[in-house]
This record gives sequence, C-alpha cells and structure tokens, in this order.
Amino acid sequence: MTRRPLNLVPFVSVHNMMRLVNAIGVERFLTELAGFVEDDFRRWPAFEKTPRLASHSIDGVIELMPTSDGTTYGFKYVNGHPKNMREGRQTVTAFGLLADVATGYPDLLCEMTILTALRTAATSAVAARHLARPNSRNMAIIGNGAQSEFQAVAFKALVGIERVRLYDIDAWASAKCAANLARHGIAATICADVATAVEGADIVTTVTADKQCATILTDNLVGAGQHINAVGGDCPGKTELHRDILLRSDIFVEYPPQTRIEGEIQQLPPDHPVTELWRVIAGEVAGRRSVDRVTLFDSVGFAIEDFAALRYVRSKLALGGFHEDLDLLADPDEPRDLFGMLHRSAIREAVSA
Amino acid sequence: MTRRPLNLVPFVSVHNMMRLVNAIGVERFLTELAGFVEDDFRRWPAFEKTPRLASHSIDGVIELMPTSDGTTYGFKYVNGHPKNMREGRQTVTAFGLLADVATGYPDLLCEMTILTALRTAATSAVAARHLARPNSRNMAIIGNGAQSEFQAVAFKALVGIERVRLYDIDAWASAKCAANLARHGIAATICADVATAVEGADIVTTVTADKQCATILTDNLVGAGQHINAVGGDCPGKTELHRDILLRSDIFVEYPPQTRIEGEIQQLPPDHPVTELWRVIAGEVAGRRSVDRVTLFDSVGFAIEDFAALRYVRSKLALGGFHEDLDLLADPDEPRDLFGMLHRSAIREAVSA
Repeated sequence: MTRRPLNLVPFVSVHNMMRLVNAIGVERFLTELAGFVEDDFRRWPAFEKTPRLASHSIDGVIELMPTSDGTTYGFKYVNGHPKNMREGRQTVTAFGLLADVATGYPDLLCEMTILTALRTAATSAVAARHLARPNSRNMAIIGNGAQSEFQAVAFKALVGIERVRLYDIDAWASAKCAANLARHGIAATICADVATAVEGADIVTTVTADKQCATILTDNLVGAGQHINAVGGDCPGKTELHRDILLRSDIFVEYPPQTRIEGEIQQLPPDHPVTELWRVIAGEVAGRRSVDRVTLFDSVGFAIEDFAALRYVRSKLALGGFHEDLDLLADPDEPRDLFGMLHRSAIREAVSA
Repeated sequence: MTRRPLNLVPFVSVHNMMRLVNAIGVERFLTELAGFVEDDFRRWPAFEKTPRLASHSIDGVIELMPTSDGTTYGFKYVNGHPKNMREGRQTVTAFGLLADVATGYPDLLCEMTILTALRTAATSAVAARHLARPNSRNMAIIGNGAQSEFQAVAFKALVGIERVRLYDIDAWASAKCAANLARHGIAATICADVATAVEGADIVTTVTADKQCATILTDNLVGAGQHINAVGGDCPGKTELHRDILLRSDIFVEYPPQTRIEGEIQQLPPDHPVTELWRVIAGEVAGRRSVDRVTLFDSVGFAIEDFAALRYVRSKLALGGFHEDLDLLADPDEPRDLFGMLHRSAIREAVSA
C-alpha cells in the first residue's frame, strides 16, 4: 500500500520509551516531565475533567482516563490487578494517546506502563516541593514494589532527598529497591518495620498495592511537620492510612470528585475540607501553613498528569529515532471512498501475488 | 531487548484489515460479522453498559466506547468531524482494543475506521432482517458517502436487497457509490431528489453526515410498511428524520439512555415508547407487527457492536499473516523491578553501541 502521512500515527513502544528515558537520563527526564506537569496544573481550569471510567472485576480494574485542553485530547488505558504480580505480570500496565481536537486524528500512541510510573513520581515530587518542609532530606518508603524507585529518584531530583528508609512485607523487594537506588547515589536503609522506617522522616511515601483497606500507617507513627505522600490507595475500598491521620492533616488532592471515591478521603465525610493541589501550584492558596503541620498529598492519579506526560514525550519525538510509524488510520485517496480503497487494495494484492 | 510474549499485543493495521476483508470476501466478512453481532445482542444483559464518554468541540467529537462481558473488556476510540472530508480526511476514524478482564492485559489492538463501517452495516442489516418486510428487495440510500456501499453490500448479503436507489446532494458521491456497487452485482439508480429515491422502496437508509438537525426525510415521503434504517443521526443536535415520522413508527434502538441523547428520538419526550433491538433478536418481543407498519431502527452505534466486531477479528488472527506484534506492554523479568528493567536496557544499548 502507498504510505502517506495521514494514515500514520507515531508510536512509542516500551523498547523506545526505555531508550528515550536512558538517552535523556532518568533524573533529567523526571525533572523536565515535572515541568510539564506543573504547567498543566497551573492551567487546570482550561481542562475538560471527568472521573475516570472504570470497569471493575473481582481481580482488578480497567480504566479509561480522558481529558482535553480544547486543542489536544488525550486518554490513557490503564489496568490495576494486584494478583498479576504473582503470575509474573505487572500490577499496572498502560498505554496512552494524544489527538488533535480539530480533526480527531491521533498524533501519538505511547506505552505508559513505564511513563505512568514516571509521571506518578514526578507529580508526587511536584506536590512535595510545595507541601513538604523546606530542606527535607530523608524519606520513608513503605512498599518497595515497581513504583518505589521512581518515587525516590524523583524526590532526589526535584526535592533534594538524599536518604531513604525502606520497608516492605517482602524483604526481597526492599533489597531490590536499595540496589537500584545505590546506582543513583541515594543511600537506602532497609527497616524491619514501618515504625522504624517512618521515625524522623521528613516525608513518608506509602506505595503499597493490595486492593483492600489496609492500615499501613497508624496515627501514632506520624510526627509533627511530616509530609505524607500517599500513592498506593487509588480505588474504592483501597486505602493505606488510618482515618485519624487524615483528621489532623492538611489534605491536598488532584480532582476532588475522583479522590473522594478512590483516595484515602473515602474514609471521611463527603464535605471534609480538602485543597486542590493545582491551586497551590498556581499560587492561589498556601500549601504548608507552618513547620509543624502534617500535610498529606492523597494521590490517586489524574488524567491531566498523563496528558502532561504524553505532551512531554511528544515534544521529544523531534529528537528522532524513538518512535515507529503505525498504520492506524484509513486514508483513502478520496475520503468518501473508503469502500473503493478496499477494492483497490485487493487489486494491489492480486498484482503483487 | 529480549522479546517475550507477555509484552506483545497483536495489532491489525489498516493495511492488514483490508487484506483480511479481501481474503475473506467482503460479503462473507459482513455475514460472519453479523453472526457475532447477533450473538452479542442475544446475551445483551451480560454486558456492562454505559453511554459513551464524549468530548465535544466546535468541529466534532471524540468518543470512548467501553464495554465488558465479564471475561473480555473492549473499547473503541472514535472521532466524528464532518469538516474533515473537505480537508481530505475521514469524517470518522477509529481504533479499538480487547483485553482480558482477569489480567487487564490487552490482547488485540485494531484499526476500526474500516471495521466500524463494516460493523455499522452488519448491525443495520441484522436489524432489518428482524424488522423489514419479508422479501424486501429494493432500498433507497440517502447520503452516498463513505458508509453507503457498506450498507448496500450488507443488505445484499444479509437481507437479499438487489436494487438500490441513490440520492446525495453531491452527484459525484452517488456516481462513486453506484460504480462501487456494480462490482458487487447491485443495480443502482441515481435519483435527482429524495422523493424519487424513496418512492416504493422496501427499506430507506439515511446515512448523511452533517452535524446539525436536518430533515432529510419528511413524513409525506414515508409509505406504509417501509423500514427506515436511520444511521446518520448520532449525536446531540444531529438528526435526519422529521418528527412526524417518528410519531407513527415502531421505533427500535440499541441502548435507550444513549439513543435518547444522540438518536432521532432526541426530538421526542424522554418517555416515548421504544423497543430495544436486542429483545427482538433474543425472541423476547416481536419486531414487525404487520406488513403496513412503519418500522424505524434509530441507530447511533453502541459499544457492544464494536466488541462483537473486535471478537470477530480476533477469531481470525489464527489464520495467520494478518497482524503484527506490538511492543506495547512493559514486561520486566521480575514484575516488581520495572526500574531495574530501565537500567538493564541502558546497559544493552551501551553494549550494542
């Protein structure tokens, strides 16, 4: 078939995403990506927002997360299946797409398993930059699975975290995390329990994966002035923090209608006061009010973060060599002759046979 | 990178979709596809149903259409931009995906610009088989754009239509349609106006594309016993039929909550009686009640039809040679070591450089 530009959509495979991240360097990638996230948080009101469209099953959830800024449309397909890990699969896999609002034609299809891990970490670090105490240098990470290193490296690059204290119910996961972080100059201490990991931490990141209400962090473990970066609780019935922590924290969220269903605050009445993170980033409201307040970023992930991440990747396509062209869109010579295109294809097949 | 099965998703490009349709033959393809559509309509209650998630703009709409039968999840991305045609683009482009509900892992990514045209035509023909008078042999087609030939060929293959009468505001479109249909043994007459095309037709198919309330068909043109297959009206503010036609028709729809917003019946009160097509196909209720009733299939397209079409294509992958493997999913050797996979990729790049 004659390849013409209109039918082709740039596709960034997993292989090319890894090449792109490594070519840029993961810390620089996270830093630049955080800039795109901040830009899009600053213009939050410009976006079309809707709670994600979720299809729940016994084993997990499959979600579509669309948004649009009126010029570009984006969505992500993402699943969450905690049991996958035990079968050698990823708990979360994802891919995403950007399209031109004016024509509806996609202009990027992109793996997002790796990119989601990067954007989640970048968003957490952006939030902490506005919410954690200045000069925060050490962080506890509770849950040392696939997302944990991305969090640590983003907090190093963007917040200045130098040391992490790790805890996981599986010591192997902590050892893997520590080994990966050593290559990035982050000192990691593996702890025997949550209390040891959390003690004295400037920032506490919870990033566990079980699909259930768990109390990873109890109230007595949280000290004055700590910032809690709660990443793991992200669907109905899945939380990580004891309710009492929430009651004495200043709570910051992405998109309240979604977070009230999926986040830690599903444990609270629907009118419990929360602050939208974008207002802090836009300078409309204060983040941390004093050094001894407990701040909580109740992160569930929102479509605008994926949108920002896809925009960032799209901006890097000009580097060349990091994408393939995918024959995704029908492009008949004459747009009203889709049927005739089928016929001409048959002729070409016959001629070339 | 080491390619292992878990990261690969079968992808059917536009080129391969055309090869597949031509290898099977378009009439047989439509007939077999109609069988999948009927199968899924018969088990309609088993599906998770939701109105599509639409992002509207001045120029058009971008939609996500998900559904699930509890075992397989599917969704379609589709745009509708009437002005595209004038710029050499398709009014409608689409792609779709199937995934395993148990793991959330996609198992088919597929072009759906061509496949949507085929499934829309197959669904229309399935409906007509249950709703049109027996021995219907001639059909009027109002609007002779990209979808028109698919409709005619599906109605030939599934309903027994032998002759079509064509009308379009652009005579070129009618000529193109007639020429394409001649190759399928369908006799086409190009008519100078709607009234001439419609007169005496057993079935009237309206498939125009403007995004506005138009009155393509007025009440005086519709005769006793005709079946109207209204395909073109499919979003808020976009209709083709005069309200009076609706008031004297037996109306059949796909999914009432969606059709009341998008279909011809957006012109009627929200409690106007309609019959769900699946109930007719499942044998629960009658379709045509007598030879002189006017029946109307107010078609807007529903996710379950796309699901059936994707299932059909997936069933054909075993033929071999009609798909590529797409490196869409990250598959680290150890699922909790996504970060380490990045590192190992960098080492491989360095070694191979």
